[in-house]
Amino acid sequence: MTTHVMFANHRDKILSLISELHCDTLVSFMPENVYYLTGFWGESVVVCTRNSSKLIVPRLEAKRAEKAAPSCEIVASERGKFIIDQVLNEIRRRKTCSDCDDHVVIELLLKNLSKGSLIINSEPFSKARMIKGKREIEMIAKASQIIDKLYERCIREIRPGQSESSLQAILVYEALMSGANMISYKWSTNPIIVASGHNSSYPHAEVTDRVFSKNDIIVVDLTIRYNGYIGDATRTFFLGKPSPRVKNIYEIVKVAQQAGIEALSSPQIAGNIDKLTRSVIDKAGYGDDFIHSTGHGVGLEVHERPWIRANDVERVQSNMVVTIEPGIYIRNKFGVRIEDTLLVKNNNTREPAKNFNSFTKELLEIT
Amino acid sequence: MTTHVMFANHRDKILSLISELHCDTLVSFMPENVYYLTGFWGESVVVCTRNSSKLIVPRLEAKRAEKAAPSCEIVASERGKFIIDQVLNEIRRRKTCSDCDDHVVIELLLKNLSKGSLIINSEPFSKARMIKGKREIEMIAKASQIIDKLYERCIREIRPGQSESSLQAILVYEALMSGANMISYKWSTNPIIVASGHNSSYPHAEVTDRVFSKNDIIVVDLTIRYNGYIGDATRTFFLGKPSPRVKNIYEIVKVAQQAGIEALSSPQIAGNIDKLTRSVIDKAGYGDDFIHSTGHGVGLEVHERPWIRANDVERVQSNMVVTIEPGIYIRNKFGVRIEDTLLVKNNNTREPAKNFNSFTKELLEIT
Repeated sequence: MTTHVMFANHRDKILSLISELHCDTLVSFMPENVYYLTGFWGESVVVCTRNSSKLIVPRLEAKRAEKAAPSCEIVASERGKFIIDQVLNEIRRRKTCSDCDDHVVIELLLKNLSKGSLIINSEPFSKARMIKGKREIEMIAKASQIIDKLYERCIREIRPGQSESSLQAILVYEALMSGANMISYKWSTNPIIVASGHNSSYPHAEVTDRVFSKNDIIVVDLTIRYNGYIGDATRTFFLGKPSPRVKNIYEIVKVAQQAGIEALSSPQIAGNIDKLTRSVIDKAGYGDDFIHSTGHGVGLEVHERPWIRANDVERVQSNMVVTIEPGIYIRNKFGVRIEDTLLVKNNNTREPAKNFNSFTKELLEIT
Repeated sequence: MTTHVMFANHRDKILSLISELHCDTLVSFMPENVYYLTGFWGESVVVCTRNSSKLIVPRLEAKRAEKAAPSCEIVASERGKFIIDQVLNEIRRRKTCSDCDDHVVIELLLKNLSKGSLIINSEPFSKARMIKGKREIEMIAKASQIIDKLYERCIREIRPGQSESSLQAILVYEALMSGANMISYKWSTNPIIVASGHNSSYPHAEVTDRVFSKNDIIVVDLTIRYNGYIGDATRTFFLGKPSPRVKNIYEIVKVAQQAGIEALSSPQIAGNIDKLTRSVIDKAGYGDDFIHSTGHGVGLEVHERPWIRANDVERVQSNMVVTIEPGIYIRNKFGVRIEDTLLVKNNNTREPAKNFNSFTKELLEIT
């Protein structure tokens, strides 16, 4: 299957989902959704009907869009209001569903369209993207293989005197040299997480200049993109000999993570997978120190549906890709997190999930 | 001035601007605005009044927020609806202005507040951020110095056999080792632009594995972040001897860029700066090949107010930081762009803008 066939299939998938809302046209404003539908990543809006995809781009992107999305008709436009006018031209006599979340744009569209002809609903887009196809799975596997390689590198680079920021630089260099890209996550200014010593007690630590020393814990959370698709994994390393308490906490997290992974091999709602993982940590007495959700979907976004979190009723199905990433964070002291990206297989027949990450989860003491 | 005083000043600045809208409280949902007001960069919402800043964060971020924003009251919350409930608690009896742009959140807020008590308007936020303070200017200067150093590195690294992706990896490594961070720009999956040969004809080229060869043009557009603040510059290199045509186009772009820089030293509206720059390229006969705006403001975002573009009536004032970046793009052949980040000085007294970038703009032939 060529990528162009893949993008055409994606369009059909969303069009089929919006037909349930009595819509025949989709308009996408989100870069991930535009890429999913066209293969083009850049400033743009795409309008798709059963027979056509029109990619509206600012003039400066026209030639690049032609090359990246050869099966789309490219419409070059001035920016801002002019792009919205182009969109309106395309959808005026249609019944349209859009993923737009910007209130100014939504108001502008609604004001210029007949009542009821535009539905704002990103659900069909996220729902389509949640179930991955063969090529998408291949890309996530490739991203994950690069991550495995980066963890091998961690073993060689983690030593007293190395800093969080220098390890980050080395890993990012290696990722880029391997053909991967770093992801942009608006709530962070760092491409990856390298959190040592007490910094590891922050699940979303920023990278600092802190220098590693003996008896440090070092949490390395890597998210990288390969041909659009993301792999996400976390390993926790020890410089020197961990204390019995640290060893114990590591084992609890490891058992909890395994429980989460095993929960993927039988039909479950997401909230139940969170509960099964969490209960291991709860029972061990660290429930209050597991201060985030168990996992999330991964694909073109690092965090996307399904959400593996408390009380979530989404059914976890075959060909979803999710992380399982419990952690225990001892305030102002240290944290431990173990995370893999996994492909849910046929859980109706108890087929185990496929782990994209093969780097060891045995407790690693670097001496 | 400590950074905490800076963040307090920023709060006062926005509160003063929203008082013109008869508001006494601000709510910010944008990561850049939250950082501007608090010093914390991460998933959060901040509510500020004259005497307090309450930073509402998901539980997992509470400890990190306490450390990054010691003058804020930290409110730890479950995610999603619970965070919105916290916001509603804070603003229920106030007159509030918010930068929120998400239509779902806006609807939820409006539904739960008395009519007219919440104004959705990001203008006071962007207006405050447009005029930079002393420390902000220092950070942009530092980011720009790192960029200058990266261009020195380009001279050593650009050679036949080197690829776009490997040069990108080297530059990103050096930036991270220099204490900078890469920025996240949602319309790109690359942290920087390295565009060689025909790829340079795309202003927003993605980095590829294309290998440099003799007589290539290589456009390197670097945007990096230092302590939150961004520097942005572009240089165009030549591998070997450029043809007379290429030399001529390079000189036109250089003269146009200089015209734009000089226009910053007298009182102007942004549209006029665009016109002055563009007219150089127009007169030389390449007007149709300058397919983007002349520049944009730079700060916590890589693109922010003011917009140096056609017909824009924003007055360019002292202590704004802007790029001037004309380019000529010959379809399917090559492109040339030259970009600096500049500080507008007192243009009422004809004081020249300060160029943050000192790396040469002479035509560089790498042999």
